[in-house]
Amino acid sequence: MSAERSAHQRIHREVGEPCLSAKYENPCRGTPLVVFISCDKLFFSTTNMHLTYYDLTIPLLAKNLKNVQSVLAKGWEAAQASQMSETAFLDQRLAEDMFPLIKQIQMLTDTAKATPARLTGREMITLEDTETTVGELNQRIDTVLAHLETYSPEDFSESAERKIELKFLEGQFQYGKDYLMDFALPNFFFHCTVAYAIIRVQGVQIGKIDYIGSLSLHPLT
Amino acid sequence: MSAERSAHQRIHREVGEPCLSAKYENPCRGTPLVVFISCDKLFFSTTNMHLTYYDLTIPLLAKNLKNVQSVLAKGWEAAQASQMSETAFLDQRLAEDMFPLIKQIQMLTDTAKATPARLTGREMITLEDTETTVGELNQRIDTVLAHLETYSPEDFSESAERKIELKFLEGQFQYGKDYLMDFALPNFFFHCTVAYAIIRVQGVQIGKIDYIGSLSLHPLT
Repeated sequence: MSAERSAHQRIHREVGEPCLSAKYENPCRGTPLVVFISCDKLFFSTTNMHLTYYDLTIPLLAKNLKNVQSVLAKGWEAAQASQMSETAFLDQRLAEDMFPLIKQIQMLTDTAKATPARLTGREMITLEDTETTVGELNQRIDTVLAHLETYSPEDFSESAERKIELKFLEGQFQYGKDYLMDFALPNFFFHCTVAYAIIRVQGVQIGKIDYIGSLSLHPLT
Repeated sequence: MSAERSAHQRIHREVGEPCLSAKYENPCRGTPLVVFISCDKLFFSTTNMHLTYYDLTIPLLAKNLKNVQSVLAKGWEAAQASQMSETAFLDQRLAEDMFPLIKQIQMLTDTAKATPARLTGREMITLEDTETTVGELNQRIDTVLAHLETYSPEDFSESAERKIELKFLEGQFQYGKDYLMDFALPNFFFHCTVAYAIIRVQGVQIGKIDYIGSLSLHPLT
């Protein structure tokens, strides 16, 4: 009798009737074995069927913050080549009543610092909106990148059910899962895209790959 | 002895030494009980500590496609009020060498149809890029929305490890997890944001909330 089958039978006896609907799915194939027992089913699976809240915040935010730094550097290089002042470069915007580049980068770093803090209940770092140069904006992004590295996957164990209060949602809250998907991720990518577009529309030679950044690739065999 | 503790001890005996490092995390609190057994740890947890590939594709894509429909409707209403032709409206772009609104919507629907198809190995629906009107673009979005509804969470059980081949990655592939986070999600939100921005820069009275859409809220008690 396989170890899996044996474990199944023991657990079956332990939890009783609800496991009569037990089934095997995704039998272990070299990846760590996990046995799930829920109220109405039991099955073997692998640990990587799911994404964690850590996966969807820390590495995702960090990678895209670095992409923003790269886009910002290319934009600033082109601006300098065309004798544009640093102030004028950072004050560019898509429309008169939209926020300028400097504010877009302040906002996307705000989202990047706030998302894991809210999902974990940890205190948020303070970022004063006092930047006036490209160097200071890069420093702000570096500060957030360093802060993101202080989180561990275990910090997010309660994220799904955490009640997230946002100041514009008076008297209401979002559960962590909804906050991440309804608001945090779309909002973060919004400001990354607008920052990219502000630079792109000036004719700077950047393309989608600068926004997307590097891809984790493997050779086809 | 609690049922949890009893189950733990049985499983401990079953799987032997690796479980000496067993620990309890997130003891069951009214949500379905799940027992995890991995190579080096065992703990009780709840089923919603993680996000599924289904969560991160089907409802997320559907919600944001509907947001795009709403933004498109407001933009077209304003364009009609200012006597702009439908062709001119759909040909607007952020810069001469960027894609127009019509193409942005074709591309974001392409991403929305391709992401779950690639993650599940299901065949992709065909969308001919023949739209020339707002009505036809809305129909295209509706087609993708209806297609998204045909997926079930079980379809994504192999997504993490699925080898995703993209035509611009000759001889290489991405694992499903990397594809989703490196490429699919950022790319989808890129085109949603650019479509929004194209309409926004024309002075149409839309704001971030039109891009974000409705939030799942609960009253604070």
